[in-house]
Amino acid sequence: MTSSGIPGATVNRLPIYLRVLVDLADQGRSTIASEALAELSGVNASKVRKDLSHLGTYGTRGVGYEVPFLVAEISRELGLTEDWPVAIVGFGNLGHALVNYKGFEDRGFHVVAVFDADKTKVGQKVGKLVVQDVNALKKVAGTQAISIVILATPAAVAQQVADKVVAAGIKSILNFAPAIINVPDDVSVRKVDLSMELQILSFYQQRTRS
Amino acid sequence: MTSSGIPGATVNRLPIYLRVLVDLADQGRSTIASEALAELSGVNASKVRKDLSHLGTYGTRGVGYEVPFLVAEISRELGLTEDWPVAIVGFGNLGHALVNYKGFEDRGFHVVAVFDADKTKVGQKVGKLVVQDVNALKKVAGTQAISIVILATPAAVAQQVADKVVAAGIKSILNFAPAIINVPDDVSVRKVDLSMELQILSFYQQRTRS
Repeated sequence: MTSSGIPGATVNRLPIYLRVLVDLADQGRSTIASEALAELSGVNASKVRKDLSHLGTYGTRGVGYEVPFLVAEISRELGLTEDWPVAIVGFGNLGHALVNYKGFEDRGFHVVAVFDADKTKVGQKVGKLVVQDVNALKKVAGTQAISIVILATPAAVAQQVADKVVAAGIKSILNFAPAIINVPDDVSVRKVDLSMELQILSFYQQRTRS
Repeated sequence: MTSSGIPGATVNRLPIYLRVLVDLADQGRSTIASEALAELSGVNASKVRKDLSHLGTYGTRGVGYEVPFLVAEISRELGLTEDWPVAIVGFGNLGHALVNYKGFEDRGFHVVAVFDADKTKVGQKVGKLVVQDVNALKKVAGTQAISIVILATPAAVAQQVADKVVAAGIKSILNFAPAIINVPDDVSVRKVDLSMELQILSFYQQRTRS
């Protein structure tokens, strides 16, 4: 249970619903039944209704939920109506791809700084940004009000970079490095495993084989 | 419900449990209580027990689940004990990062071919692979038994590339392009939204602000 009274498991599902709802909105859909939303989200319908009731949203019997309203509600609950200055540490191929990833900007996550430890990368331009030395992280984090750091370093240096991030006073880390990092209790870490959706595909693919 | 009798929502959660269990195994843990697994996975404990019961796995009262056994069971159920030849279409920064992504190989997903439409990229080497013309997809898919394609193209060309993938007889697509693609019913598509975990971080971050 979070301090807002919304269970952690519900928080984890809100981005899933939001992704489905944004796709529906893009397709011009104005309402969606809880059963249909459940099906598209891979969650059962009673769970969907319970999750959304935590937001004070109940839908209308026989009509369902209003898509634009629900997009706005979930966005607000997740804090996506605020602007989040984000820094990326690690300017390899993944870091480079993430700097340009349109899906961040669309959700209010603005990449305002990029760092690397490699002196040959420091000074390189990427869009409107210039790659900075990772040792400048603390200073830059203060002046640019960076609230979230995306770790896109090799696994071998992930912990030492995470230590610098923590020392800079940043409380949220999104970890793309294939390594477990240890941080103090007041720092939130989410780990991204790019193979998770592939695993779901392979489940279905193996069934078609046999 | 899938043809195997495992509900789709359970399938969607198996990779989450697997990620947690692999981390625990790496830390040397041999058993885990369902409550602890639930907490680490962001799912409630009764749901965890029900999900795992679909695999015929029940744990031992007072002890919990055996971590290595459960890793093996979930891996087998997801088809991760098989080898999956994967092709990546789109050799921009993201495609390049994905070719080198260690997390795929670790789960049995072998990137065996890379394609791009850009003639200046075709012929470039990346590790042991050479970037091929996307128009060769159908021919290569047959000879290399490619079962899954990862789309890492710009949004604007995602649909036309998806059409080529479908024409090549491939039934599973992992879509990183920020676009909705339409495919026949017998083709599975999973969409990756790299901002999903960021949204969970922003939920907690906004609470610490206020």
